[in-house]
Amino acid sequence: MRVRYAETDQMGVVYHANYLVWFEVGRVELMRVCGLPYSRLEQEFSCMIAVAGVEVRYRLPARYDDEILVRTRLLAMRGPVLRIGYEVVRAGEDKLLCEGTTTHVVVGRDMAKRLLPEPYRVAFQTLLAADPVG
Amino acid sequence: MRVRYAETDQMGVVYHANYLVWFEVGRVELMRVCGLPYSRLEQEFSCMIAVAGVEVRYRLPARYDDEILVRTRLLAMRGPVLRIGYEVVRAGEDKLLCEGTTTHVVVGRDMAKRLLPEPYRVAFQTLLAADPVG
Amino acid sequence: MRVRYAETDQMGVVYHANYLVWFEVGRVELMRVCGLPYSRLEQEFSCMIAVAGVEVRYRLPARYDDEILVRTRLLAMRGPVLRIGYEVVRAGEDKLLCEGTTTHVVVGRDMAKRLLPEPYRVAFQTLLAADPVG
Amino acid sequence: MRVRYAETDQMGVVYHANYLVWFEVGRVELMRVCGLPYSRLEQEFSCMIAVAGVEVRYRLPARYDDEILVRTRLLAMRGPVLRIGYEVVRAGEDKLLCEGTTTHVVVGRDMAKRLLPEPYRVAFQTLLAADPVG
Repeated sequence: MRVRYAETDQMGVVYHANYLVWFEVGRVELMRVCGLPYSRLEQEFSCMIAVAGVEVRYRLPARYDDEILVRTRLLAMRGPVLRIGYEVVRAGEDKLLCEGTTTHVVVGRDMAKRLLPEPYRVAFQTLLAADPVG
Repeated sequence: MRVRYAETDQMGVVYHANYLVWFEVGRVELMRVCGLPYSRLEQEFSCMIAVAGVEVRYRLPARYDDEILVRTRLLAMRGPVLRIGYEVVRAGEDKLLCEGTTTHVVVGRDMAKRLLPEPYRVAFQTLLAADPVG
Repeated sequence: MRVRYAETDQMGVVYHANYLVWFEVGRVELMRVCGLPYSRLEQEFSCMIAVAGVEVRYRLPARYDDEILVRTRLLAMRGPVLRIGYEVVRAGEDKLLCEGTTTHVVVGRDMAKRLLPEPYRVAFQTLLAADPVG
Repeated sequence: MRVRYAETDQMGVVYHANYLVWFEVGRVELMRVCGLPYSRLEQEFSCMIAVAGVEVRYRLPARYDDEILVRTRLLAMRGPVLRIGYEVVRAGEDKLLCEGTTTHVVVGRDMAKRLLPEPYRVAFQTLLAADPVG
Protein backbone atom coordinates (compact mmCIF):
# COMPACT_ATOMS: atom_id res chain seq x y z
CA MET A 1 0.00 0.00 0.00
CA ARG A 2 1.48 3.33 -1.06
CA VAL A 3 0.93 6.49 0.92
CA ARG A 4 -1.26 8.79 -1.17
CA TYR A 5 -0.74 12.51 -1.51
CA ALA A 6 -4.28 12.95 -0.21
CA GLU A 7 -3.19 11.24 3.00
CA THR A 8 -0.48 13.76 3.88
CA ASP A 9 -1.00 17.03 5.69
CA GLN A 10 0.95 20.27 5.75
CA MET A 11 3.43 18.88 8.31
CA GLY A 12 4.60 16.77 5.35
CA VAL A 13 3.60 13.53 7.05
CA VAL A 14 0.56 11.29 7.01
CA TYR A 15 -2.44 12.82 8.78
CA HIS A 16 -3.04 10.76 11.93
CA ALA A 17 -6.66 9.82 11.21
CA ASN A 18 -5.59 7.98 8.06
CA TYR A 19 -3.92 5.22 10.09
CA LEU A 20 -7.42 4.17 11.14
CA VAL A 21 -8.27 3.73 7.47
CA TRP A 22 -5.17 1.58 7.02
CA PHE A 23 -6.12 -0.50 10.06
CA GLU A 24 -9.41 -1.13 8.30
CA VAL A 25 -7.57 -2.23 5.16
CA GLY A 26 -5.52 -4.65 7.30
CA ARG A 27 -8.65 -5.97 9.00
CA VAL A 28 -10.45 -6.54 5.73
CA GLU A 29 -7.43 -8.31 4.21
CA LEU A 30 -7.18 -10.55 7.28
CA MET A 31 -10.76 -11.66 6.66
CA ARG A 32 -10.18 -12.09 2.94
CA VAL A 33 -7.13 -14.29 3.62
CA CYS A 34 -9.41 -16.50 5.74
CA GLY A 35 -11.60 -16.88 2.64
CA LEU A 36 -14.34 -14.88 4.34
CA PRO A 37 -14.53 -11.38 2.91
CA TYR A 38 -16.17 -8.68 4.98
CA SER A 39 -18.43 -7.68 2.09
CA ARG A 40 -20.05 -11.15 2.19
CA LEU A 41 -20.73 -10.68 5.88
CA GLU A 42 -22.81 -7.58 5.13
CA GLN A 43 -24.50 -8.91 2.01
CA GLU A 44 -25.18 -12.52 2.93
CA PHE A 45 -25.56 -12.35 6.69
CA SER A 46 -26.82 -8.74 7.14
CA CYS A 47 -24.19 -8.50 9.77
CA MET A 48 -21.80 -5.62 10.40
CA ILE A 49 -18.69 -5.19 12.49
CA ALA A 50 -19.05 -1.79 14.14
CA VAL A 51 -16.08 0.01 15.68
CA ALA A 52 -16.52 0.46 19.44
CA GLY A 53 -13.07 1.68 20.39
CA VAL A 54 -9.69 2.60 19.05
CA GLU A 55 -6.24 3.02 20.58
CA VAL A 56 -3.26 4.24 18.58
CA ARG A 57 0.38 5.03 19.45
CA TYR A 58 2.24 6.97 16.78
CA ARG A 59 5.99 6.17 16.83
CA LEU A 60 7.48 7.57 13.63
CA PRO A 61 5.82 9.48 10.81
CA ALA A 62 4.98 7.80 7.53
CA ARG A 63 5.58 9.98 4.50
CA TYR A 64 4.23 10.43 1.00
CA ASP A 65 4.95 7.54 -1.35
CA ASP A 66 6.23 5.24 1.43
CA GLU A 67 5.32 1.65 0.85
CA ILE A 68 3.41 0.68 3.92
CA LEU A 69 2.65 -2.71 5.46
CA VAL A 70 -0.05 -3.30 8.06
CA ARG A 71 0.48 -6.43 10.19
CA THR A 72 -2.93 -7.37 11.49
CA ARG A 73 -3.73 -9.89 14.22
CA LEU A 74 -6.89 -11.06 15.88
CA LEU A 75 -6.29 -10.57 19.61
CA ALA A 76 -9.53 -11.79 21.15
CA MET A 77 -13.13 -12.82 20.45
CA ARG A 78 -15.61 -12.88 23.36
CA GLY A 79 -19.22 -13.26 22.34
CA PRO A 80 -20.02 -10.39 19.96
CA VAL A 81 -16.83 -8.49 20.85
CA LEU A 82 -13.63 -8.65 18.80
CA ARG A 83 -10.26 -7.09 19.47
CA ILE A 84 -7.75 -6.67 16.67
CA GLY A 85 -4.15 -5.45 16.80
CA TYR A 86 -2.10 -3.63 14.16
CA GLU A 87 1.50 -2.73 13.48
CA VAL A 88 2.35 -0.35 10.66
CA VAL A 89 5.86 -0.59 9.18
CA ARG A 90 7.56 0.50 5.99
CA ALA A 91 8.01 -2.42 3.57
CA GLY A 92 11.43 -4.01 4.05
CA GLU A 93 12.06 -2.24 7.34
CA ASP A 94 11.38 -3.33 10.85
CA LYS A 95 10.93 0.01 12.59
CA LEU A 96 7.45 0.46 13.93
CA LEU A 97 5.69 3.57 12.60
CA CYS A 98 2.47 3.08 14.45
CA GLU A 99 0.67 0.44 16.47
CA GLY A 100 -2.86 0.16 17.70
CA THR A 101 -5.85 -1.91 18.61
CA THR A 102 -9.48 -1.68 17.66
CA THR A 103 -12.44 -3.10 19.54
CA HIS A 104 -15.51 -4.14 17.59
CA VAL A 105 -19.06 -5.21 18.24
CA VAL A 106 -20.83 -7.48 15.80
CA VAL A 107 -24.30 -6.11 15.05
CA GLY A 108 -27.26 -6.82 12.78
CA ARG A 109 -28.98 -4.31 10.48
CA ASP A 110 -30.99 -3.20 13.53
CA MET A 111 -27.70 -2.35 15.31
CA ALA A 112 -28.46 -5.00 18.00
CA LYS A 113 -25.51 -7.10 19.16
CA ARG A 114 -25.26 -10.60 17.75
CA LEU A 115 -22.68 -13.33 17.34
CA LEU A 116 -20.62 -13.62 14.22
CA PRO A 117 -22.11 -16.09 11.72
CA GLU A 118 -20.79 -19.64 12.19
CA PRO A 119 -18.19 -19.80 9.36
CA TYR A 120 -16.62 -16.54 10.47
CA ARG A 121 -16.58 -17.60 14.12
CA VAL A 122 -14.88 -20.89 13.27
CA ALA A 123 -12.27 -19.17 11.11
CA PHE A 124 -11.54 -16.63 13.84
CA GLN A 125 -11.18 -19.35 16.48
CA THR A 126 -8.71 -21.12 14.21
CA LEU A 127 -6.76 -17.87 13.85
CA LEU A 128 -6.68 -17.40 17.63
CA ALA A 129 -5.55 -20.97 18.21
CA ALA A 130 -2.78 -20.67 15.60
CA ASP A 131 -1.51 -17.36 16.96
CA PRO A 132 -2.04 -17.30 20.74
CA VAL A 133 -1.57 -13.82 22.11
CA GLY A 134 0.75 -13.16 25.06
CA MET B 1 -16.29 27.17 7.45
CA ARG B 2 -12.68 26.85 8.59
CA VAL B 3 -10.09 24.89 6.64
CA ARG B 4 -9.18 21.83 8.72
CA TYR B 5 -5.67 20.49 9.13
CA ALA B 6 -6.94 17.20 7.74
CA GLU B 7 -7.84 19.03 4.52
CA THR B 8 -4.31 20.22 3.77
CA ASP B 9 -1.63 18.21 1.99
CA GLN B 10 2.14 18.39 2.04
CA MET B 11 2.18 21.26 -0.47
CA GLY B 12 0.82 23.25 2.47
CA VAL B 13 -2.47 23.96 0.71
CA VAL B 14 -5.89 22.36 0.62
CA TYR B 15 -5.94 19.03 -1.21
CA HIS B 16 -7.93 19.54 -4.39
CA ALA B 17 -10.52 16.80 -3.78
CA ASN B 18 -11.71 18.57 -0.64
CA TYR B 19 -13.28 21.38 -2.67
CA LEU B 20 -15.85 18.84 -3.83
CA VAL B 21 -16.74 18.24 -0.19
CA TRP B 22 -17.16 21.99 0.31
CA PHE B 23 -19.35 22.18 -2.79
CA GLU B 24 -21.54 19.58 -1.12
CA VAL B 25 -21.71 21.68 2.04
CA GLY B 26 -22.78 24.65 -0.08
CA ARG B 27 -25.40 22.57 -1.90
CA VAL B 28 -26.85 21.22 1.32
CA GLU B 29 -27.01 24.69 2.87
CA LEU B 30 -28.76 26.03 -0.23
CA MET B 31 -31.48 23.43 0.28
CA ARG B 32 -31.68 24.07 4.01
CA VAL B 33 -32.12 27.81 3.37
CA CYS B 34 -35.10 26.91 1.15
CA GLY B 35 -36.56 25.13 4.18
CA LEU B 36 -36.09 21.79 2.45
CA PRO B 37 -33.14 19.92 3.93
CA TYR B 38 -31.49 17.21 1.87
CA SER B 39 -31.78 14.71 4.71
CA ARG B 40 -35.58 14.97 4.52
CA LEU B 41 -35.40 14.18 0.82
CA GLU B 42 -33.70 10.87 1.57
CA GLN B 43 -35.76 9.97 4.61
CA GLU B 44 -39.23 11.12 3.62
CA PHE B 45 -39.16 10.76 -0.14
CA SER B 46 -36.59 7.95 -0.57
CA CYS B 47 -35.03 10.17 -3.13
CA MET B 48 -31.35 10.90 -3.65
CA ILE B 49 -29.43 13.45 -5.65
CA ALA B 50 -26.56 11.53 -7.24
CA VAL B 51 -23.53 13.30 -8.68
CA ALA B 52 -23.23 12.74 -12.43
CA GLY B 53 -20.48 15.19 -13.27
CA VAL B 54 -18.09 17.71 -11.83
CA GLU B 55 -16.02 20.56 -13.26
CA VAL B 56 -13.58 22.55 -11.17
CA ARG B 57 -11.14 25.39 -11.91
CA TYR B 58 -8.62 26.06 -9.16
CA ARG B 59 -7.52 29.74 -9.13
CA LEU B 60 -5.66 30.33 -5.86
CA PRO B 61 -4.87 27.92 -3.06
CA ALA B 62 -6.83 27.92 0.18
CA ARG B 63 -4.71 27.35 3.27
CA TYR B 64 -5.05 25.91 6.72
CA ASP B 65 -7.33 27.88 9.05
CA ASP B 66 -8.62 30.15 6.27
CA GLU B 67 -12.24 31.06 6.76
CA ILE B 68 -13.93 29.89 3.62
CA LEU B 69 -17.20 30.87 2.00
CA VAL B 70 -18.97 28.84 -0.69
CA ARG B 71 -21.40 30.84 -2.85
CA THR B 72 -23.83 28.31 -4.27
CA ARG B 73 -26.34 28.85 -7.04
CA LEU B 74 -28.83 26.66 -8.83
CA LEU B 75 -28.02 27.02 -12.53
CA ALA B 76 -30.61 24.76 -14.17
CA MET B 77 -33.25 22.11 -13.59
CA ARG B 78 -34.40 20.00 -16.54
CA GLY B 79 -36.49 17.00 -15.62
CA PRO B 80 -34.41 14.88 -13.23
CA VAL B 81 -31.21 16.78 -14.00
CA LEU B 82 -29.87 19.63 -11.89
CA ARG B 83 -26.87 21.86 -12.45
CA ILE B 84 -25.37 23.82 -9.57
CA GLY B 85 -22.57 26.40 -9.57
CA TYR B 86 -20.06 27.28 -6.85
CA GLU B 87 -17.57 30.00 -6.04
CA VAL B 88 -15.16 29.57 -3.17
CA VAL B 89 -13.73 32.74 -1.60
CA ARG B 90 -12.03 33.66 1.66
CA ALA B 91 -14.44 35.40 4.03
CA GLY B 92 -14.21 39.18 3.61
CA GLU B 93 -12.25 38.94 0.38
CA ASP B 94 -13.43 38.92 -3.16
CA LYS B 95 -10.68 36.96 -4.86
CA LEU B 96 -11.91 33.71 -6.28
CA LEU B 97 -10.06 30.65 -4.95
CA CYS B 98 -11.99 28.09 -6.89
CA GLU B 99 -15.11 27.80 -9.02
CA GLY B 100 -16.99 24.86 -10.33
CA THR B 101 -20.22 23.24 -11.37
CA THR B 102 -21.79 19.92 -10.52
CA THR B 103 -24.40 18.02 -12.50
CA HIS B 104 -26.84 15.80 -10.64
CA VAL B 105 -29.46 13.21 -11.40
CA VAL B 106 -32.38 12.72 -9.05
CA VAL B 107 -32.87 9.00 -8.37
CA GLY B 108 -34.96 6.71 -6.18
CA ARG B 109 -33.66 3.97 -3.90
CA ASP B 110 -33.56 1.72 -6.99
CA MET B 111 -31.20 4.21 -8.67
CA ALA B 112 -33.80 4.87 -11.42
CA LYS B 113 -34.19 8.47 -12.54
CA ARG B 114 -37.16 10.34 -11.18
CA LEU B 115 -38.37 13.90 -10.74
CA LEU B 116 -37.70 15.81 -7.56
CA PRO B 117 -40.66 15.67 -5.15
CA GLU B 118 -43.14 18.52 -5.63
CA PRO B 119 -42.10 20.83 -2.75
CA TYR B 120 -38.45 20.68 -3.78
CA ARG B 121 -39.29 21.27 -7.43
CA VAL B 122 -41.36 24.31 -6.60
CA ALA B 123 -38.66 25.75 -4.33
CA PHE B 124 -36.03 25.22 -7.01
CA GLN B 125 -38.18 26.86 -9.68
CA THR B 126 -38.60 29.85 -7.38
CA LEU B 127 -34.83 30.02 -6.93
CA LEU B 128 -34.28 29.90 -10.68
CA ALA B 129 -36.88 32.61 -11.29
CA ALA B 130 -35.36 34.87 -8.62
CA ASP B 131 -31.80 34.42 -9.88
CA PRO B 132 -31.91 33.96 -13.65
CA VAL B 133 -28.59 32.73 -14.98
CA GLY B 134 -26.85 34.52 -17.86
CA MET C 1 -20.69 21.62 12.98
CA ARG C 2 -22.89 19.63 10.61
CA VAL C 3 -22.13 16.05 9.65
CA ARG C 4 -21.19 16.03 5.96
CA TYR C 5 -22.31 13.41 3.49
CA ALA C 6 -18.63 12.74 2.81
CA GLU C 7 -18.25 11.73 6.44
CA THR C 8 -20.79 8.92 6.35
CA ASP C 9 -20.11 5.36 5.23
CA GLN C 10 -22.37 2.65 3.85
CA MET C 11 -23.54 1.65 7.34
CA GLY C 12 -25.38 4.99 7.19
CA VAL C 13 -23.39 6.43 10.07
CA VAL C 14 -20.28 8.55 10.43
CA TYR C 15 -17.09 6.68 9.53
CA HIS C 16 -15.13 6.24 12.75
CA ALA C 17 -11.90 7.91 11.59
CA ASN C 18 -13.77 11.20 11.10
CA TYR C 19 -14.18 11.67 14.84
CA LEU C 20 -10.43 12.26 14.97
CA VAL C 21 -10.90 15.12 12.52
CA TRP C 22 -13.62 16.57 14.75
CA PHE C 23 -11.35 16.24 17.79
CA GLU C 24 -8.87 18.34 15.84
CA VAL C 25 -11.54 20.95 15.14
CA GLY C 26 -12.31 21.03 18.89
CA ARG C 27 -8.63 21.35 19.77
CA VAL C 28 -8.06 24.17 17.32
CA GLU C 29 -11.14 26.04 18.57
CA LEU C 30 -9.95 25.65 22.16
CA MET C 31 -6.73 27.40 21.19
CA ARG C 32 -8.53 30.08 19.21
CA VAL C 33 -10.81 30.82 22.20
CA CYS C 34 -7.62 31.39 24.24
CA GLY C 35 -6.67 34.03 21.66
CA LEU C 36 -3.80 31.83 20.47
CA PRO C 37 -4.64 30.18 17.17
CA TYR C 38 -2.76 27.06 16.18
CA SER C 39 -1.87 28.54 12.78
CA ARG C 40 0.15 31.27 14.55
CA LEU C 41 2.05 28.60 16.44
CA GLU C 42 3.25 27.07 13.17
CA GLN C 43 3.87 30.36 11.36
CA GLU C 44 5.35 32.52 14.09
CA PHE C 45 7.03 29.99 16.34
CA SER C 46 7.84 27.21 13.82
CA CYS C 47 6.32 24.93 16.34
CA MET C 48 3.93 22.04 15.74
CA ILE C 49 1.77 19.91 17.97
CA ALA C 50 2.21 16.36 16.70
CA VAL C 51 -0.22 13.61 17.62
CA ALA C 52 1.47 10.86 19.64
CA GLY C 53 -1.53 8.84 20.72
CA VAL C 54 -5.26 8.56 20.44
CA GLU C 55 -7.95 6.74 22.43
CA VAL C 56 -11.58 6.74 21.36
CA ARG C 57 -14.74 5.08 22.73
CA TYR C 58 -17.70 5.12 20.36
CA ARG C 59 -21.03 5.14 22.25
CA LEU C 60 -23.75 5.98 19.74
CA PRO C 61 -23.50 6.65 16.02
CA ALA C 62 -23.66 10.18 14.64
CA ARG C 63 -25.63 10.46 11.41
CA TYR C 64 -25.72 12.61 8.32
CA ASP C 65 -26.81 16.21 8.90
CA ASP C 66 -26.67 15.89 12.71
CA GLU C 67 -25.52 19.07 14.37
CA ILE C 68 -22.51 18.05 16.36
CA LEU C 69 -20.78 19.66 19.33
CA VAL C 70 -17.28 18.78 20.49
CA ARG C 71 -16.56 19.63 24.14
CA THR C 72 -12.81 19.95 24.40
CA ARG C 73 -10.74 20.14 27.57
CA LEU C 74 -7.05 20.36 28.31
CA LEU C 75 -6.34 17.45 30.69
CA ALA C 76 -2.61 17.82 31.34
CA MET C 77 0.59 19.55 30.27
CA ARG C 78 3.92 18.04 31.33
CA GLY C 79 6.94 19.53 29.59
CA PRO C 80 6.42 19.06 25.84
CA VAL C 81 3.53 16.62 26.34
CA LEU C 82 -0.13 17.62 26.23
CA ARG C 83 -3.21 15.55 26.89
CA ILE C 84 -6.60 16.70 25.64
CA GLY C 85 -10.05 15.21 26.21
CA TYR C 86 -13.14 15.30 24.01
CA GLU C 87 -16.84 14.57 24.26
CA VAL C 88 -18.98 14.54 21.14
CA VAL C 89 -22.70 15.18 21.56
CA ARG C 90 -25.58 16.22 19.34
CA ALA C 91 -26.44 19.91 19.82
CA GLY C 92 -29.20 20.28 22.41
CA GLU C 93 -28.84 16.71 23.65
CA ASP C 94 -26.80 15.32 26.45
CA LYS C 95 -26.25 11.77 25.26
CA LEU C 96 -22.61 11.06 24.61
CA LEU C 97 -21.91 9.89 21.05
CA CYS C 98 -18.20 9.49 21.44
CA GLU C 99 -15.44 10.38 23.88
CA GLY C 100 -11.70 10.27 23.59
CA THR C 101 -8.32 11.64 24.49
CA THR C 102 -5.35 12.60 22.39
CA THR C 103 -1.74 12.85 23.52
CA HIS C 104 0.53 15.34 21.80
CA VAL C 105 4.18 16.21 21.66
CA VAL C 106 5.25 19.75 20.89
CA VAL C 107 8.01 19.72 18.25
CA GLY C 108 10.00 22.16 16.13
CA ARG C 109 10.42 22.04 12.35
CA ASP C 110 13.20 19.49 12.93
CA MET C 111 10.70 17.23 14.74
CA ALA C 112 12.74 17.54 17.99
CA LYS C 113 10.73 17.91 21.18
CA ARG C 114 10.48 21.40 22.63
CA LEU C 115 8.37 23.34 25.08
CA LEU C 116 5.35 25.31 23.93
CA PRO C 117 6.18 28.99 23.38
CA GLU C 118 5.64 31.13 26.49
CA PRO C 119 2.24 32.74 25.64
CA TYR C 120 0.73 29.35 24.81
CA ARG C 121 2.16 27.75 27.95
CA VAL C 122 0.75 30.49 30.15
CA ALA C 123 -2.67 30.27 28.53
CA PHE C 124 -2.74 26.49 28.95
CA GLN C 125 -1.71 26.73 32.61
CA THR C 126 -4.57 29.18 33.16
CA LEU C 127 -6.94 26.72 31.49
CA LEU C 128 -5.73 23.88 33.71
CA ALA C 129 -6.07 26.01 36.86
CA ALA C 130 -9.60 27.09 35.93
CA ASP C 131 -10.76 23.57 35.12
CA PRO C 132 -8.92 21.12 37.38
CA VAL C 133 -9.35 17.56 36.18
CA GLY C 134 -10.58 14.81 38.49
CA MET D 1 -6.82 -1.14 -5.73
CA ARG D 2 -9.70 -2.18 -3.47
CA VAL D 3 -12.51 0.20 -2.56
CA ARG D 4 -12.18 0.99 1.15
CA TYR D 5 -15.07 1.22 3.55
CA ALA D 6 -13.92 4.75 4.33
CA GLU D 7 -14.51 5.64 0.67
CA THR D 8 -18.22 4.75 0.65
CA ASP D 9 -21.04 7.02 1.74
CA GLN D 10 -24.54 6.33 3.01
CA MET D 11 -25.87 5.84 -0.52
CA GLY D 12 -23.83 2.63 -0.36
CA VAL D 13 -21.53 3.72 -3.17
CA VAL D 14 -18.18 5.44 -3.41
CA TYR D 15 -18.31 9.12 -2.46
CA HIS D 16 -17.67 11.11 -5.62
CA ALA D 17 -14.68 13.11 -4.35
CA ASN D 18 -12.70 9.90 -3.85
CA TYR D 19 -12.38 9.36 -7.59
CA LEU D 20 -10.06 12.38 -7.62
CA VAL D 21 -7.86 10.55 -5.12
CA TRP D 22 -7.83 7.50 -7.40
CA PHE D 23 -6.93 9.71 -10.37
CA GLU D 24 -3.95 10.85 -8.34
CA VAL D 25 -2.96 7.25 -7.66
CA GLY D 26 -3.13 6.58 -11.41
CA ARG D 27 -1.09 9.68 -12.19
CA VAL D 28 1.60 8.78 -9.68
CA GLU D 29 1.82 5.20 -10.99
CA LEU D 30 2.13 6.50 -14.55
CA MET D 31 5.18 8.49 -13.46
CA ARG D 32 6.62 5.58 -11.48
CA VAL D 33 6.27 3.29 -14.52
CA CYS D 34 8.35 5.83 -16.46
CA GLY D 35 11.06 5.38 -13.82
CA LEU D 36 10.45 8.93 -12.59
CA PRO D 37 8.52 8.92 -9.34
CA TYR D 38 6.65 12.05 -8.36
CA SER D 39 8.26 12.08 -4.91
CA ARG D 40 11.68 12.56 -6.58
CA LEU D 41 10.29 15.55 -8.46
CA GLU D 42 9.45 17.27 -5.18
CA GLN D 43 12.58 16.23 -3.30
CA GLU D 44 15.26 16.53 -5.94
CA PHE D 45 13.90 19.25 -8.20
CA SER D 46 11.77 21.25 -5.70
CA CYS D 47 9.11 21.06 -8.31
CA MET D 48 5.41 20.33 -7.83
CA ILE D 49 2.57 19.48 -10.14
CA ALA D 50 -0.37 21.54 -8.92
CA VAL D 51 -3.93 20.75 -9.95
CA ALA D 52 -5.47 23.58 -11.97
CA GLY D 53 -8.65 21.92 -13.16
CA VAL D 54 -10.70 18.77 -13.01
CA GLU D 55 -13.52 17.30 -15.08
CA VAL D 56 -15.30 14.11 -14.13
CA ARG D 57 -18.21 12.14 -15.61
CA TYR D 58 -19.68 9.49 -13.33
CA ARG D 59 -21.17 6.58 -15.31
CA LEU D 60 -21.81 3.74 -12.87
CA PRO D 61 -21.22 3.59 -9.13
CA ALA D 62 -18.23 1.73 -7.68
CA ARG D 63 -19.01 -0.16 -4.50
CA TYR D 64 -17.27 -1.31 -1.37
CA ASP D 65 -14.61 -3.99 -1.94
CA ASP D 66 -14.71 -3.66 -5.74
CA GLU D 67 -11.33 -4.15 -7.30
CA ILE D 68 -10.73 -0.98 -9.24
CA LEU D 69 -8.41 -0.19 -12.11
CA VAL D 70 -7.46 3.33 -13.19
CA ARG D 71 -6.27 3.60 -16.79
CA THR D 72 -4.18 6.75 -16.97
CA ARG D 73 -2.94 8.52 -20.06
CA LEU D 74 -0.96 11.66 -20.70
CA LEU D 75 -3.10 13.72 -23.12
CA ALA D 76 -0.98 16.83 -23.66
CA MET D 77 2.06 18.80 -22.46
CA ARG D 78 2.34 22.45 -23.47
CA GLY D 79 5.04 24.38 -21.63
CA PRO D 80 4.26 24.10 -17.91
CA VAL D 81 0.77 22.73 -18.52
CA LEU D 82 -0.12 19.03 -18.50
CA ARG D 83 -3.39 17.33 -19.26
CA ILE D 84 -4.02 13.78 -18.09
CA GLY D 85 -6.97 11.48 -18.79
CA TYR D 86 -8.44 8.68 -16.67
CA GLU D 87 -10.83 5.78 -17.03
CA VAL D 88 -11.97 3.88 -13.96
CA VAL D 89 -13.17 0.30 -14.48
CA ARG D 90 -13.71 -2.76 -12.30
CA ALA D 91 -10.86 -5.26 -12.76
CA GLY D 92 -11.78 -7.84 -15.40
CA GLU D 93 -14.71 -5.81 -16.70
CA ASP D 94 -14.88 -3.31 -19.48
CA LYS D 95 -17.75 -1.13 -18.34
CA LEU D 96 -16.67 2.39 -17.59
CA LEU D 97 -17.47 3.51 -14.04
CA CYS D 98 -16.02 6.96 -14.34
CA GLU D 99 -13.86 9.01 -16.68
CA GLY D 100 -12.17 12.32 -16.29
CA THR D 101 -9.34 14.66 -17.09
CA THR D 102 -7.12 16.79 -14.90
CA THR D 103 -5.14 19.86 -15.91
CA HIS D 104 -1.93 20.64 -14.09
CA VAL D 105 0.58 23.43 -13.83
CA VAL D 106 4.18 22.67 -12.97
CA VAL D 107 5.39 25.06 -10.26
CA GLY D 108 8.43 25.62 -8.06
CA ARG D 109 8.40 25.99 -4.26
CA ASP D 110 7.51 29.65 -4.82
CA MET D 111 4.39 28.57 -6.75
CA ALA D 112 5.74 30.26 -9.93
CA LYS D 113 5.20 28.36 -13.17
CA ARG D 114 8.21 26.50 -14.55
CA LEU D 115 8.94 23.75 -17.03
CA LEU D 116 9.20 20.14 -15.92
CA PRO D 117 12.81 19.10 -15.28
CA GLU D 118 14.53 17.65 -18.37
CA PRO D 119 14.28 13.87 -17.58
CA TYR D 120 10.57 14.16 -16.85
CA ARG D 121 9.93 16.24 -19.96
CA VAL D 122 11.73 13.72 -22.16
CA ALA D 123 9.86 10.78 -20.63
CA PHE D 124 6.54 12.55 -21.12
CA GLN D 125 7.33 13.40 -24.74
CA THR D 126 8.14 9.72 -25.33
CA LEU D 127 4.79 8.78 -23.77
CA LEU D 128 2.95 11.24 -26.01
CA ALA D 129 4.75 9.99 -29.12
CA ALA D 130 3.98 6.34 -28.28
CA ASP D 131 0.31 7.01 -27.56
CA PRO D 132 -0.89 9.81 -29.81
CA VAL D 133 -4.24 11.12 -28.69
CA GLY D 134 -7.15 11.35 -31.12
